[in-house]
Amino acid sequence: MPEQAARPAPGAATGSGGTAAPSGAASQAPPAPSERAARRPRRTDPDRRGRIVEACLDVIADVGVAGTTHRRIAAAADIPLGSIHYHFEGMDELLREAFTRFAGTVGEVFERRLAGAGDCEAAKAAVVAIITEDVLGTQRELVLTHELYTLAARSPGFRDITNAWMARSRRALEARFDPVTARLLDALIEGLTIHRALDNVPHDPAAAADAVERLTGSARL
Amino acid sequence: MPEQAARPAPGAATGSGGTAAPSGAASQAPPAPSERAARRPRRTDPDRRGRIVEACLDVIADVGVAGTTHRRIAAAADIPLGSIHYHFEGMDELLREAFTRFAGTVGEVFERRLAGAGDCEAAKAAVVAIITEDVLGTQRELVLTHELYTLAARSPGFRDITNAWMARSRRALEARFDPVTARLLDALIEGLTIHRALDNVPHDPAAAADAVERLTGSARL
Repeated sequence: MPEQAARPAPGAATGSGGTAAPSGAASQAPPAPSERAARRPRRTDPDRRGRIVEACLDVIADVGVAGTTHRRIAAAADIPLGSIHYHFEGMDELLREAFTRFAGTVGEVFERRLAGAGDCEAAKAAVVAIITEDVLGTQRELVLTHELYTLAARSPGFRDITNAWMARSRRALEARFDPVTARLLDALIEGLTIHRALDNVPHDPAAAADAVERLTGSARL
Repeated sequence: MPEQAARPAPGAATGSGGTAAPSGAASQAPPAPSERAARRPRRTDPDRRGRIVEACLDVIADVGVAGTTHRRIAAAADIPLGSIHYHFEGMDELLREAFTRFAGTVGEVFERRLAGAGDCEAAKAAVVAIITEDVLGTQRELVLTHELYTLAARSPGFRDITNAWMARSRRALEARFDPVTARLLDALIEGLTIHRALDNVPHDPAAAADAVERLTGSARL
């Protein structure tokens, strides 16, 4: 391991010099006179702001929050550096929006699983599927989740993102289970998926079904 | 937030120029000719290696794994930079030893709680106390735990540390509960403590007791 554990990937910080074009999402922010290519013809790029947010998540997944810079995000999004300053006030706003989008994507999968469950048994099966198939199912999700948790552990200001994420999961569970059971199931999902992901031996999926059965034993649907 | 979210604390990287003295723990590593002050009189410092590991944890808690450098650790331990190179092959070995020590300290508290429980009810109460009073109970433990999890999420080579930690917790629980229940309780402890720590509203401690009761309902002591 290098001196710095999250040392940037080679070349990540070198801008790719993407075509400089003024943003098409000008209504979202005041005009930035520093947008260097403002005199070039306008190019349609209505979701540049969204692409910056996605690129920010890519960079976090790659080098971590600590190594995430405007320069690397610009290179990943293939846009000029000034465009990021045009769309975002600073790194705090960018990180906030990136992690909110990430939590939203994961929360959507969670909601879909439970929305498709018609009765009590189906709802329990959906929770088991969330544990064994969905949450932390990819390396990217595993890394981004823990980058967010570490940020929220360090900076309480980011806990409104983790709070909103938990609240959304609980709401989805509360459509099928009483509020106390929903909160316990949400914690169980968290614990079982983290333990599976950070272990170096496989976990038995049957344990998830067993746990859900125990926690919901006296639960009201 | 600055450009780099985990930007080092000002001055953290400036060495404090602590007295250069050869290590007293020479049996643990071959002599380092680069130890600049080798010609000074030997000073008794039998646990310099341990102090370096503790300083490493302090630096990680302060600026994160990504910002942890030999230089900052030397400054925090008040020793010359060369002494770190004398005791540790590189940052990987240092991080490994630091997080192993951290997990050991937390695991010890966990074991003590359960060792003091004489019967089934006491064991359940011990698990509730672990959830509501022990795990992630300080800002330092919260940050270090998530720094380790993020490292293990990114680098599977560090999962032997998280694996050993989980195995130790489960062994402690298995002295009081059957293996399946022990694993579920361990996951529940993880999930409930993370959710409490990363939320911005307080959690009801009674929920932990309820959850433990549900998971152990059919458990064998």
